[in-house]
Amino acid sequence: MFNVVLWQPEIPANTGNIGRLCLGAGARLHIVRPMRFMVNDRQLRRAGLDYWRRLDVAFYDSLDELAGIIPPARTWLLSTKASRCYTEAEFAPGDALVFGPESRGLPADMLSAAPERCLRLPMTGEVRSLNLANTVAVALYEAWRQNAFRMPVSLPGNGTETHDKEEK
Amino acid sequence: MFNVVLWQPEIPANTGNIGRLCLGAGARLHIVRPMRFMVNDRQLRRAGLDYWRRLDVAFYDSLDELAGIIPPARTWLLSTKASRCYTEAEFAPGDALVFGPESRGLPADMLSAAPERCLRLPMTGEVRSLNLANTVAVALYEAWRQNAFRMPVSLPGNGTETHDKEEK
Repeated sequence: MFNVVLWQPEIPANTGNIGRLCLGAGARLHIVRPMRFMVNDRQLRRAGLDYWRRLDVAFYDSLDELAGIIPPARTWLLSTKASRCYTEAEFAPGDALVFGPESRGLPADMLSAAPERCLRLPMTGEVRSLNLANTVAVALYEAWRQNAFRMPVSLPGNGTETHDKEEK
Repeated sequence: MFNVVLWQPEIPANTGNIGRLCLGAGARLHIVRPMRFMVNDRQLRRAGLDYWRRLDVAFYDSLDELAGIIPPARTWLLSTKASRCYTEAEFAPGDALVFGPESRGLPADMLSAAPERCLRLPMTGEVRSLNLANTVAVALYEAWRQNAFRMPVSLPGNGTETHDKEEK
């Protein structure tokens, strides 16, 4: 239904929770390397429970590589620096939601190249950001809500994709 | 704006992330004991970063004690066993969102006492549940979205409340 892209994720427990979330929402997970941890990291597996092996996950060495699969016009960039609220976007099945690393978010040049595709979550001034997995959860469920929570035709793990998979 | 209630939370990192989330969304956090960890737990503080000390958090020894502060008619019970989708609720400022412990959720007798107040998040059949903090994030942001992301009049931590606070 939707694609979740983690660009250079840093914290394995977050990636594990996001994997579980994607499986629960019928989304495909895409990870753009480098990652700061291994896919068999204990923290990742603990957070993702036994879900990780059933997850539809693909790995890339650059966003350019991913752009060959998901066109930039279907891609949303989530950032605390964006001015547009995530609920103003009109999400369509197949759209990709891209999230940066926990410590620094998506780079400024990536955001400035497509400001109309940049979305933020409203927040009080009391926090700099939310936990990455929480941010993904909010954005992904809003995208799904806008599409009447339709279930994906083929659930993840049915094996139609061609990208390399680690640990599967 | 909204009240988030954790009933007997078990995993400190989740409570830490939920604290950060509440501060970000201008919500008050209520924790019903027993907790399985201390409020100064290292994992909680790591997940909550330096936010925990600014958070508006209150502790209770039973849900009955909390019911004196938030009427049951303003309370929503989040559970994977509910039949009503969380987006079908009409959330109003001051409403409370109640979440059970990670391992078992809210007890059946609590749910059956008020089935019309029970809400679930849609999920594929691939997972039993989402991470607790992710569930809170999705429900809290939907409640806030329905209320146009209005900021609370007085931000948390302004010290108007009277409940006992630990570690503050």
